[in-house]
Amino acid sequence: MPDLSALLQPRTIAVIGASTQPDKVGGMPVRLLSELGYAGRIVPVHATASEVQGLAAVPTMDALDAPADLAIVALPVGASLDAMRQLARNGTRAAVFFTSGFAETGGDGIALQAELAALAQAHGITLLGPNCLGAMSLRERVFATFSPIPLGGLPPLGEVGLVSQSGAFGAYAFALAREAQLGLSHWVTTGNEAGLHVADVIEWLARDDATRVILAYLEGCRDGARLRRALAAARAAGKPVVVTKVGTTAAGARSAQSHTASLAGEDAVYQAVFDEYGVFRADTLEDFFRLGYVLSRGRRPTRWQPAAKEPSNAVTPVALVTVSGGVGIMMADQAEALELPLPPMPAAPAAALRNAIPFASTANPIDVTGQVVAQPEVLLDAIAAAAQSPDYGSVVAFLAGGVGSPRIWPGLQETVEALYRGGNAAPLLFSGLADDDKRRWLEARGALVFREPAHAVQAVAVLARAAAQAAAAQTPASACVAAAVGLPVPDVPPGTTALSEFEAMQWLAACGIPTAPHGLARDADEAVRIAGGMGYPVAIKLCSPDILHKSDVGGVVLNVADAQAARAAFAQVRAAATSHGRPARFDGALVAGMVRGWGELMVGVRCDPVFGLVALAGIGGTAVEIFRQTAFGLAPLSHARARTMLRASRAEALLSGHRGHPALDAGAVAEVLVRVSQAAAALGPRLDTLEINPLIVTARGVVAADAVVTLQAAASDRHTNRPTEETTR
Amino acid sequence: MPDLSALLQPRTIAVIGASTQPDKVGGMPVRLLSELGYAGRIVPVHATASEVQGLAAVPTMDALDAPADLAIVALPVGASLDAMRQLARNGTRAAVFFTSGFAETGGDGIALQAELAALAQAHGITLLGPNCLGAMSLRERVFATFSPIPLGGLPPLGEVGLVSQSGAFGAYAFALAREAQLGLSHWVTTGNEAGLHVADVIEWLARDDATRVILAYLEGCRDGARLRRALAAARAAGKPVVVTKVGTTAAGARSAQSHTASLAGEDAVYQAVFDEYGVFRADTLEDFFRLGYVLSRGRRPTRWQPAAKEPSNAVTPVALVTVSGGVGIMMADQAEALELPLPPMPAAPAAALRNAIPFASTANPIDVTGQVVAQPEVLLDAIAAAAQSPDYGSVVAFLAGGVGSPRIWPGLQETVEALYRGGNAAPLLFSGLADDDKRRWLEARGALVFREPAHAVQAVAVLARAAAQAAAAQTPASACVAAAVGLPVPDVPPGTTALSEFEAMQWLAACGIPTAPHGLARDADEAVRIAGGMGYPVAIKLCSPDILHKSDVGGVVLNVADAQAARAAFAQVRAAATSHGRPARFDGALVAGMVRGWGELMVGVRCDPVFGLVALAGIGGTAVEIFRQTAFGLAPLSHARARTMLRASRAEALLSGHRGHPALDAGAVAEVLVRVSQAAAALGPRLDTLEINPLIVTARGVVAADAVVTLQAAASDRHTNRPTEETTR
Repeated sequence: MPDLSALLQPRTIAVIGASTQPDKVGGMPVRLLSELGYAGRIVPVHATASEVQGLAAVPTMDALDAPADLAIVALPVGASLDAMRQLARNGTRAAVFFTSGFAETGGDGIALQAELAALAQAHGITLLGPNCLGAMSLRERVFATFSPIPLGGLPPLGEVGLVSQSGAFGAYAFALAREAQLGLSHWVTTGNEAGLHVADVIEWLARDDATRVILAYLEGCRDGARLRRALAAARAAGKPVVVTKVGTTAAGARSAQSHTASLAGEDAVYQAVFDEYGVFRADTLEDFFRLGYVLSRGRRPTRWQPAAKEPSNAVTPVALVTVSGGVGIMMADQAEALELPLPPMPAAPAAALRNAIPFASTANPIDVTGQVVAQPEVLLDAIAAAAQSPDYGSVVAFLAGGVGSPRIWPGLQETVEALYRGGNAAPLLFSGLADDDKRRWLEARGALVFREPAHAVQAVAVLARAAAQAAAAQTPASACVAAAVGLPVPDVPPGTTALSEFEAMQWLAACGIPTAPHGLARDADEAVRIAGGMGYPVAIKLCSPDILHKSDVGGVVLNVADAQAARAAFAQVRAAATSHGRPARFDGALVAGMVRGWGELMVGVRCDPVFGLVALAGIGGTAVEIFRQTAFGLAPLSHARARTMLRASRAEALLSGHRGHPALDAGAVAEVLVRVSQAAAALGPRLDTLEINPLIVTARGVVAADAVVTLQAAASDRHTNRPTEETTR
Repeated sequence: MPDLSALLQPRTIAVIGASTQPDKVGGMPVRLLSELGYAGRIVPVHATASEVQGLAAVPTMDALDAPADLAIVALPVGASLDAMRQLARNGTRAAVFFTSGFAETGGDGIALQAELAALAQAHGITLLGPNCLGAMSLRERVFATFSPIPLGGLPPLGEVGLVSQSGAFGAYAFALAREAQLGLSHWVTTGNEAGLHVADVIEWLARDDATRVILAYLEGCRDGARLRRALAAARAAGKPVVVTKVGTTAAGARSAQSHTASLAGEDAVYQAVFDEYGVFRADTLEDFFRLGYVLSRGRRPTRWQPAAKEPSNAVTPVALVTVSGGVGIMMADQAEALELPLPPMPAAPAAALRNAIPFASTANPIDVTGQVVAQPEVLLDAIAAAAQSPDYGSVVAFLAGGVGSPRIWPGLQETVEALYRGGNAAPLLFSGLADDDKRRWLEARGALVFREPAHAVQAVAVLARAAAQAAAAQTPASACVAAAVGLPVPDVPPGTTALSEFEAMQWLAACGIPTAPHGLARDADEAVRIAGGMGYPVAIKLCSPDILHKSDVGGVVLNVADAQAARAAFAQVRAAATSHGRPARFDGALVAGMVRGWGELMVGVRCDPVFGLVALAGIGGTAVEIFRQTAFGLAPLSHARARTMLRASRAEALLSGHRGHPALDAGAVAEVLVRVSQAAAALGPRLDTLEINPLIVTARGVVAADAVVTLQAAASDRHTNRPTEETTR
């Protein structure tokens, strides 16, 4: 667990390479700390000057009379290691290195950075950077940065912690936060991440009392376990995390023995990680900040429920009150797209509204019409009635120019105060034009204001999800993890690099996964005997560890109808083993019952170099290649995640009475996915790829009809902290 | 062709129901016209007062000494018809009716509105409304509205014409335009549309010299032909149209004889119309205005090319210049999603940049890094070099806080002036923070400024598309329309309501569409003879006009292998004709060759009640139901549209060497779609549904293996102006 207290709450800050010129890289931190009210001790370290910007300086850290909590290092790259050694001798607890010229330049810089990191680690120094823009704590007025951006003004002190791998992104985000008056607690840029990663900062912010919402900008993650631990800590603390993850990794493509791997973009794996931990993802700066605004300022809905199409998400019934029918329709379109239920107005307030304005609509959207100009109290009554009704979890009101209009504003203030005094009213979200004062008055009470009606509706969905996640954080971990531990999974002998299809089918069956009847025949007689036992038609397939794509060499014969055909098929697949250039080992022929169904799924687990085992599922056959609706989840899967994957990949459509076929229990199919993922997880980092394709949909459930399992000969430490991409910023 | 000149350029305006109280509905237009500088004659019409708000009034229109160009009518619903008769006697050319209580209230209001419209039409009076918020011309300072919103200030005079069915939406849009300083030419709300539709206003704005960009808000369209004519006029004038279309129609579901219809949401038909005419669609108010801003202010790229995945769209190679690697990646992600090519920086400026800043990146994004603070001229040189390079069609520069920084701004002004003076530099788009003055300085020169980097990249794509569309408007209509006219399509006898599958296949073949070999057998002998002629295996299917879903009653036997099986199959389908409750007519059995391929498409044409014939295409079988990637286009299709439909529905994946199958000529397949759509168009409004499912993908091209054709017995006037939804605002 990383400790950032010396970095963000230091009592003594040394500035190494401090400049007498306030606008130089080494001068700016001294200037910012002095001018912007840092209350602790500032010690400029300067080779020759005895005073820097009015503060007494020391020539080296060795001349300092006490250990510094934090050292800001603004020295050329060549002086960095010596500086780090000074810090070690001084007993400094944390260091920010602005210095560039390390790993980002390649070559010697990589080794130099490793040495810097090793020194810091050996002496217990928390290291931020190098090649970073530093950090700030707005609460402690710590400005350990050389960016002049705080000179232009600070955002309000607030509860949003912001961490960015990129310095320039971080600086721009700081400026935008200031402009939008988004309240910040801390601001950290991680640069080359020789010490602290974005993940470490997230984890610390998750435990920081001053932070309620975490905004993180990521370019890549070199340590999946660390990021997962951080996101788990934030989830457990009930603090929403908003992530902007840009770019596609430059990680060398892993040699994909089956085509599954080629379907999996790295980004889908990141998304699976974010889904697992309930991360809110933002693709644009605008979304990034709006999510920060909504999550840090917005009241949570009074009630929520699992979303119909995505039970791992939550929604809340919302009342849409509008002065414009047209905008009401726009908002209803949005609500429908987000699965937010729109129950009609309850009978009593509906009657009151129709009584006051006969042509008002009391369906939902609740349209008080332009008549509100003449009868503003009708609008306020409608808002109050909706907010007090147990039928709604949130109220969105589109008031156009009316939010701040003199006819409406005083009553609106009274309505908001009265509702929130009561304590159990549904939160209010407004859309319309309001001047800054009125907007802030509303926001201070947790009533959000949006110019764009669609954003108000989207905010309701975000807040419902945040409320559900915060509530889930209060409950202990679900039983599915225990089930994963308890599942008996048969051993695979050490050194195995692949299972034959027969071995794979045997292994899956032993793991409790429904498989087509199958047996291994060494000769034609045995093939006929096995086929007779399970009943024709059967499939006869080559079993050879040397041939992965057996159908490509004629090693698969389907729909074998009788004993004579079985003998012919056996002869064909035996011949196929020697026909593909160099002779391959012949372990026999797999005889498998032909499973009849009305659709094919594919289910797999593969090993991501950063995040470890990732499960994927979708509709098989041509569909998987053409529509690419494969869904991902971290293995082992929870039951809920497996259900969501069936839904997201549209596989569920094949299970729910498709074209007159019987409906299957989707929960039971999801449980098969869970078991596949648990079996893979039991093999752990040895697993390379597990793929069941097809998993045939039949009236009696899903049945594995073909399987590929490949393994790493030596598991080694392939999942530990290995860099998989260059750090680009 | 509607004439709005009396409405938007009147010399005399009468206000009927004018009020002495300026804030009443009947007082506001008088106040606005007087206060905001309307230069023409204003005549209040008031039953008793001789003066209204300082203007001489007349008691009725009959007392007016000359015909008015425009009458604004603010009277109760009961007085409306009388007012319209006064206008007729006066010879008034245009009327705005604010009055509500017409069709939107149902019942008598519908008849009253029809009468009002009939009177207007009979006397050649252009009618806006009733139940609307009126219209404004900012150029002529005409304020024919009772909305007080112009009192808060006007947007700048500009080249964006705004038309909204909804008054409240229009008023909010006006306020947002004012806030965003988006320059408007005209503002029109159409309300109940008894006279002018949104379409009519679009068509007039398309011919209005003061308008270059048209923003339209639609809730529904009752007259598809009128909207298409308007959009065609705008396209021909090279004026981009931005549409926000909300809501789903409440039109009663048409009884769908085949399942095709149930797959087609009304919205997809609107989208097909918008695609046909190159309409820019906005789903949110924010997008609506941003598109208005981009299209009215933004310079078009110096070059463009068809988008790779969507040739009906255009893209331009873009240089992304950035001071932040992180934001550069964000912008590159966006560019990739929009298919904008990102060629690397040309060699000479790349060398110059690397020489100045060794760790700068000269790939694209061109990352000048934070070093720009010390060397601002390097950034400006990079921007200038990119804008002057023939490799780029647009330049997006992310400058963070640098746009307005004192170190960069003077040089940036010089750079922009010099580039645009040259005349052939690529347009510049900036992202970053700039104060209003600097932003306006840039915008006045056609250099757009965005806070959100993603929006700057999106703007490039929008402008490339606009440039391509404007260029296409200069070229005469393509030859495909002529081809549609020239195609011989065999007659279908009058009164026919459905073709049998045999008749449908015969008809398709005669239209030049490849079909499976087929013949009609009246008895088993004939079935054997036909099958022998085409070769086994064949399919044998019941032919009966009374049974649409023949496979449901056992009327289809596939894979018939020999003569004996053919006799059995014939007997089965004959029996099926009488087995489904009531006996059905038996016309014989269709004998068709079994077509072997590796995929199924489905192609159809159906009759939309508003827009007429709409073609659809996609992958057939299970995929069409599960993935719903059906693509739509107006029939007859152009070749380009058919190609786009193959791509958008992912059908093209089956044609391009899928799973080792031979690659087909997608153009030839598109031509089959075109021919299907032309055949349907030749039947015209008689056609109800034409569906080919499956259209089998084989090595020799696509082959129709089953077809359904249903028709209307009486074509009548089913496509003319029939209201299909309630007007809701």
